[in-house]
Amino acid sequence: MPQEYEIELKVRDYELDLQGIVNNSVYQNYLEHARHEYLLAHNVDFAALHAERIDLVVTRVEIDYKDSLKSQDRFVVKTSMSKEGNVRIVFHQRIERLPDQKTMIAAKITGVCLKCGRPSRPETAGLELQELQEIQ
Amino acid sequence: MPQEYEIELKVRDYELDLQGIVNNSVYQNYLEHARHEYLLAHNVDFAALHAERIDLVVTRVEIDYKDSLKSQDRFVVKTSMSKEGNVRIVFHQRIERLPDQKTMIAAKITGVCLKCGRPSRPETAGLELQELQEIQ
Amino acid sequence: MPQEYEIELKVRDYELDLQGIVNNSVYQNYLEHARHEYLLAHNVDFAALHAERIDLVVTRVEIDYKDSLKSQDRFVVKTSMSKEGNVRIVFHQRIERLPDQKTMIAAKITGVCLKCGRPSRPETAGLELQELQEIQ
Amino acid sequence: MPQEYEIELKVRDYELDLQGIVNNSVYQNYLEHARHEYLLAHNVDFAALHAERIDLVVTRVEIDYKDSLKSQDRFVVKTSMSKEGNVRIVFHQRIERLPDQKTMIAAKITGVCLKCGRPSRPETAGLELQELQEIQ
Repeated sequence: MPQEYEIELKVRDYELDLQGIVNNSVYQNYLEHARHEYLLAHNVDFAALHAERIDLVVTRVEIDYKDSLKSQDRFVVKTSMSKEGNVRIVFHQRIERLPDQKTMIAAKITGVCLKCGRPSRPETAGLELQELQEIQ
Repeated sequence: MPQEYEIELKVRDYELDLQGIVNNSVYQNYLEHARHEYLLAHNVDFAALHAERIDLVVTRVEIDYKDSLKSQDRFVVKTSMSKEGNVRIVFHQRIERLPDQKTMIAAKITGVCLKCGRPSRPETAGLELQELQEIQ
Repeated sequence: MPQEYEIELKVRDYELDLQGIVNNSVYQNYLEHARHEYLLAHNVDFAALHAERIDLVVTRVEIDYKDSLKSQDRFVVKTSMSKEGNVRIVFHQRIERLPDQKTMIAAKITGVCLKCGRPSRPETAGLELQELQEIQ
Repeated sequence: MPQEYEIELKVRDYELDLQGIVNNSVYQNYLEHARHEYLLAHNVDFAALHAERIDLVVTRVEIDYKDSLKSQDRFVVKTSMSKEGNVRIVFHQRIERLPDQKTMIAAKITGVCLKCGRPSRPETAGLELQELQEIQ
C-alpha cells in the first residue's frame, strides 16, 4: 500500500455555514487542493498541463462525512493514488482533525486524463504510477 | 416512483475554474440549494429548523460527473427523496443542461436528521415521507 | 443619467455564514455576475473576450454594506455604467431586497480593459459607451 | 503607527477563475481570514462572540487591485487596526506576493461592533485598542 502524502490546513471562518460547521462543498475544495499539491510534489502541474490541453478531470466523487470541522480547527488531508484499468486514476483521501487525528472525511475520487478532450493514459500527464509509489 | 422537483438555474462566471468549466465543488452548492428548495416546497425550512436545534446533516455524497457546464449554460436540478431504514433520508438528484436536457451530474446524497446532536426519525424535522410523495 | 439594468436573484443557504447572513465576499459574486449579465445584454461576452486575450479587469472596489440579506431573501442587482477618462470604466451597482426595495449594498466598481495585458480603450472590448446608454 | 500582523497563505487552484487568476471576491476571503486571525492573536474570538450576540460587522470595503495572484503563488496578508470616532474600527490590510513582496492588494475595511443588533463601542467585543497596539 502506498504511503500517504499530507498537507496541513486550518479552517477559515468564511468556510462555515449557518450551522457553524464547514459547509459540505468546502471539503471538496480541501480535497482538490490536496490532490494538486500531491501532483506538484510529483512534478505534475495541473495549471501548466491545462495550457498544454491536457486536463485531469474528476468523473466520480464518493465522500463519507463522519464528523464536522469547526472554527479554528486544524486538520491534515492525506492523499494516496492508484490506477484502475488503463485510464482511470483513483485518489484515496482522508481528512483528520488535529491534534486528535479523528477522521472527519473519507473520500474516493476517480478521474481520467483528457488530452484535447479525449481520455488517454495517465502517463500522458506525466503520471508515472510506478515512480509515484517509489518516490513516496 | 416519486415525481421530481425541479429548479432552473444559470451558470455564473465566478463559478468557473481555470479550465473554463464549473468547478467540481460548485455542483455540490447547486445540489444543496436544490435540496433546500425542495424542502421549502414541502414546508420544511432548513434555516428555521437549525434555530430549533434540528439539523439535517449529509452523511454520504456520491456524484457522477458526466459532462461539464460552461459560461452562460442554463440547467435544471431535479430532486426526489426516499427513506432508507428508520433514520436515513436519500436524495436522488440530477443536473440537466438546457435546452438539450443532457445529464451533466447524477448524484445520490444520504443524510440524517439530528435533534440536539442525536440521530432521530425524519418526521422530527417535519419530513413526512408519505405526504411528500403525495404532494408531489 | 443612464437607465439601470436589473437582474433578480435569490439567496442560497450555502452563501450564509455562521452569523446567518450572506457573507461579505458573496456580494462581490452577485455584483460580478450582474456586470457580466449587463455586458451580455449589450453583446459583450466576458468569457469569449478572454479567449481573444482581451480581459476586463477590476482595479478598485468600493462597497457600502447597509443591511444584510438572509436565508430565502429575494433581491435585485441594479447596474449602470459610465466612462472615466480614456480607459477607465465605472460600474454603479446597488442591491435591493425584495419586495421592500431596501438598499442592502451600494457599490462603485472601477475597471480597465486589457488587451494582451496592456490597458486599452473600452471600445477594444466592444464597449461602445454611447451606444450602451442608448440601448438602455 | 501600529506594527502589522502577518499571516502567510498560498493560492489554491479552486480560487482561480477562467482568466487563470485569483477571482476578485476571493481576496475578500483572504482579508476576512486575516482579520479573524489578527483578532484571535489578541484574544478576540469572532465565532465565540457571535454566540454571545456580539457581532463584528463590516460596513465599508475599499480594495485597490494592483496585480493578480496566480496558481501556486505564496503571499502574506498584513493587517493593522485603528479606531475612528467612538464606534468605528478600521482595518488597513495589504496582500504581498512572496518572495518579491510586490503589493497585489491594498484595502481599507471599516466595521462596527453590534451588541444585540445595536452599534456599541469596540471595547464591548474586548477590542482594547490601546492594548492591541502595545501587544503588537
